[in-house]
Amino acid sequence: MNYQILRYILGLILIFEAVFLLLPGLVAAIYGEPCGWWFLATAAVVVLIGFALRIKKPTNMQFHGREGLVLVSMSWILISLISAVPMTISGVVPSYIDALFEMVSGFTTTGASALTSVEHLPHAINFWRCFSNWNGGMGVIVFIMMIIPKAASNANMYLMRAESPGPSFGKLVPKLKTTARTLYLMYIGLTLIQLILLLCGGLSFFESLCIAMATAGTGGFGIRDTGFSMYSSYVQIVVTVFMFLFGVNFKFYFLLIMRKIKEAFAIEEVFWYTILFAVASILIAIDIFPIAGTIGGSLKHASFQVATVMTTTGFATMDFNAWPIFSQVLLVLLMFVGACAGSTGGGMKVSRFIIYIKSALKEMATLLHPNSVKKIKMDGKIIDHETIRSANIYLIIYVMLMAVSIIIVSLDQFDLVTTVTSVIATFNNIGPGLGAVGPAGNFHSLSILSKLVLIFDMLTGRLEIFPIVILFVRDTWKK
Amino acid sequence: MNYQILRYILGLILIFEAVFLLLPGLVAAIYGEPCGWWFLATAAVVVLIGFALRIKKPTNMQFHGREGLVLVSMSWILISLISAVPMTISGVVPSYIDALFEMVSGFTTTGASALTSVEHLPHAINFWRCFSNWNGGMGVIVFIMMIIPKAASNANMYLMRAESPGPSFGKLVPKLKTTARTLYLMYIGLTLIQLILLLCGGLSFFESLCIAMATAGTGGFGIRDTGFSMYSSYVQIVVTVFMFLFGVNFKFYFLLIMRKIKEAFAIEEVFWYTILFAVASILIAIDIFPIAGTIGGSLKHASFQVATVMTTTGFATMDFNAWPIFSQVLLVLLMFVGACAGSTGGGMKVSRFIIYIKSALKEMATLLHPNSVKKIKMDGKIIDHETIRSANIYLIIYVMLMAVSIIIVSLDQFDLVTTVTSVIATFNNIGPGLGAVGPAGNFHSLSILSKLVLIFDMLTGRLEIFPIVILFVRDTWKK
Repeated sequence: MNYQILRYILGLILIFEAVFLLLPGLVAAIYGEPCGWWFLATAAVVVLIGFALRIKKPTNMQFHGREGLVLVSMSWILISLISAVPMTISGVVPSYIDALFEMVSGFTTTGASALTSVEHLPHAINFWRCFSNWNGGMGVIVFIMMIIPKAASNANMYLMRAESPGPSFGKLVPKLKTTARTLYLMYIGLTLIQLILLLCGGLSFFESLCIAMATAGTGGFGIRDTGFSMYSSYVQIVVTVFMFLFGVNFKFYFLLIMRKIKEAFAIEEVFWYTILFAVASILIAIDIFPIAGTIGGSLKHASFQVATVMTTTGFATMDFNAWPIFSQVLLVLLMFVGACAGSTGGGMKVSRFIIYIKSALKEMATLLHPNSVKKIKMDGKIIDHETIRSANIYLIIYVMLMAVSIIIVSLDQFDLVTTVTSVIATFNNIGPGLGAVGPAGNFHSLSILSKLVLIFDMLTGRLEIFPIVILFVRDTWKK
Repeated sequence: MNYQILRYILGLILIFEAVFLLLPGLVAAIYGEPCGWWFLATAAVVVLIGFALRIKKPTNMQFHGREGLVLVSMSWILISLISAVPMTISGVVPSYIDALFEMVSGFTTTGASALTSVEHLPHAINFWRCFSNWNGGMGVIVFIMMIIPKAASNANMYLMRAESPGPSFGKLVPKLKTTARTLYLMYIGLTLIQLILLLCGGLSFFESLCIAMATAGTGGFGIRDTGFSMYSSYVQIVVTVFMFLFGVNFKFYFLLIMRKIKEAFAIEEVFWYTILFAVASILIAIDIFPIAGTIGGSLKHASFQVATVMTTTGFATMDFNAWPIFSQVLLVLLMFVGACAGSTGGGMKVSRFIIYIKSALKEMATLLHPNSVKKIKMDGKIIDHETIRSANIYLIIYVMLMAVSIIIVSLDQFDLVTTVTSVIATFNNIGPGLGAVGPAGNFHSLSILSKLVLIFDMLTGRLEIFPIVILFVRDTWKK
């Protein structure tokens, strides 16, 4: 481990975090909220520490996969720890664990809340929650890389690979900085379009901005205790469409912009993501028709809920605890699938499932024709052996970590459905589960131990396991 | 597909099935039960068909992995279909689907029952149920191979590999026939010891025999509606010990008999199986202490329940639906783990989990040291790449089939816990789940569609996925 460069880049990340903290300070100034001072005070302390860490330039510039993984996970942990401070010292969220849960939930775009009510929070705090969704969605480090082209000599590639979701990482353009910038520009563009459409729906600027940010990051934080049930059908449909759009692999939009229409629509992952979304929406719509009453209503609620679960956003228009079991089962299974790689959505990603299914089919073929040599392809390209093995190992660690988490949370003595879905919903960065942590409930009543476990799960899920798990390997910390 | 040889060997299997059918006929004769005639009549028809299939000797003796897989799954399906016939035509189990569910549950050693009461069934039927547990435990085809050394020229190796549970198949001795015979002799020996110990506990010969057979196959069928709660502590402890013993890899006993004590105790799988059993028993004993009242009582109930779930037997002394959630969660997770490979137990097998964990650790090492070449070892031997990949694919197909099954069963509108655990409990060949299909309930009230799905799951679980799944691949049936 190259500790010098770790310190040096973490310093940079702290400086950026201080800049982010100014934003809720600004919102507080506009609305005259005293909690703003605490955001500014935290920013001041953080920026000082940041510069202090960067006084001494590193002499050893060695940066490899190991440093990349550790730096990404350390950054995310540090940013979450700092972001929760002003929420607690301002007295708005008295328990620091709850504030930390909230901010980890925000940056990992989970959207699970440990707060019993959000409607009466200061605007600055609600802005900060939704901003964390937006920032965490596309990636904190990708954001920094967009601004500063060379954080460290050869660090960027490793960092971006560690932070980007999905089984394999592909650059859009040869230059990484341009890739980061292109991603964020498309992200900002889509967010702005949604903001305008929400304003057209008659929502206030602040509310539109918060919803747009929480949707874009597929985060799922809201500023209403009643969720999305109180909004008009127009707003619900706009949000459904944009949840779906933010769950698409951003490569798709990039190809569209480059006018490579045919290539864009040939992306297998986007195709299956769309099919899955449509089929699940229709099946659930049929299933909830007796509850929803009208064909339009059931389609609206079903597609909203499928989009919110598949993209792991976590908004809700209805409490699906009351839906038929068939719909509940479909939704729980979709929680695992998640959105596309290279999108802001979480979960295991559609492309991993494509790899799994193709591997299984190949194994069947090998059983029948032991001597045949068949390669697994996606979008016409052969998937290399490393990617397949890594996807398999991902599934193994994923299942094991989930099992251990469920065991620990079970000590809280909630019912089985609450216990299991609280872990599924946080690990896959969705937000609400079923039972007591369902759309109508929240994570407030869980024990501190369970909250810590779920905080770990949210981070592990967002960073796709390896960057977090590697922190617990002794070899990682050798000089 | 070599259809000639398929027909020829299936004929032999039918002849053996006819012989098996004589046994309940004999029991019926002893107890003067009229249903015995139907067993004899079925046997007569089956033996005729069996000989008819064998009139023409196959000219093409080609037999490969594909034929082995198909033959094993076809045999199991055929035997189940036939075994259910006398139960229905004798009028004891009016619904053929229920009878089929019962027999598949028997042969796959699941032990889930679709009957609301078993106490008043004729002795012949209860014997037949428990005998199917015993026969299915060690394997129907292994039994035939023990008697007839050469069913087909080079078929035996493929057949035994396809029927034996676990990620890799190892012969005990170079000759397959001797391996099959040694396995069954140890199996019969252990069953007899248990039978004698149960007789010492004051149970009748018939009851002792049924319990011993159902324990040996880790099947879990009982002849009492109240399960094991009515038996003495002595009987419960004997059964706990033997459930544990039948979940051990039989290679362990073979090495003991060969006086290779050190080698026997060096088997990693047996070591971790024992550790897991002990730790889970103690944790659950602590958790249920307030319910059980005494230290001895909680240890007895906990170890019984852990043994029954880990070995996938499925007996019950208490309804664990009423246990604390921590214990329920542990038991549900243990359902997946299962027993040792090369035992009569089901589930995913401890050795597969050892492979999974070692693969994950190796992946971590590779992330840190990309150039290191490390091999995964078990019991000092390198596990070949094929076994690891096959174990990974197993996990993938396992998860997917389970998901699809849960979706279909959810149409029955049971609660989430019942829906999910009914699939887990049948796929892993355990028996009871939680909720309505818990130890105090049964599978009677499920729809025919769900029962068919669970029948498929039981067979797929027992035969470890590939032999069943391959039936649905078009290439399998090409000449």
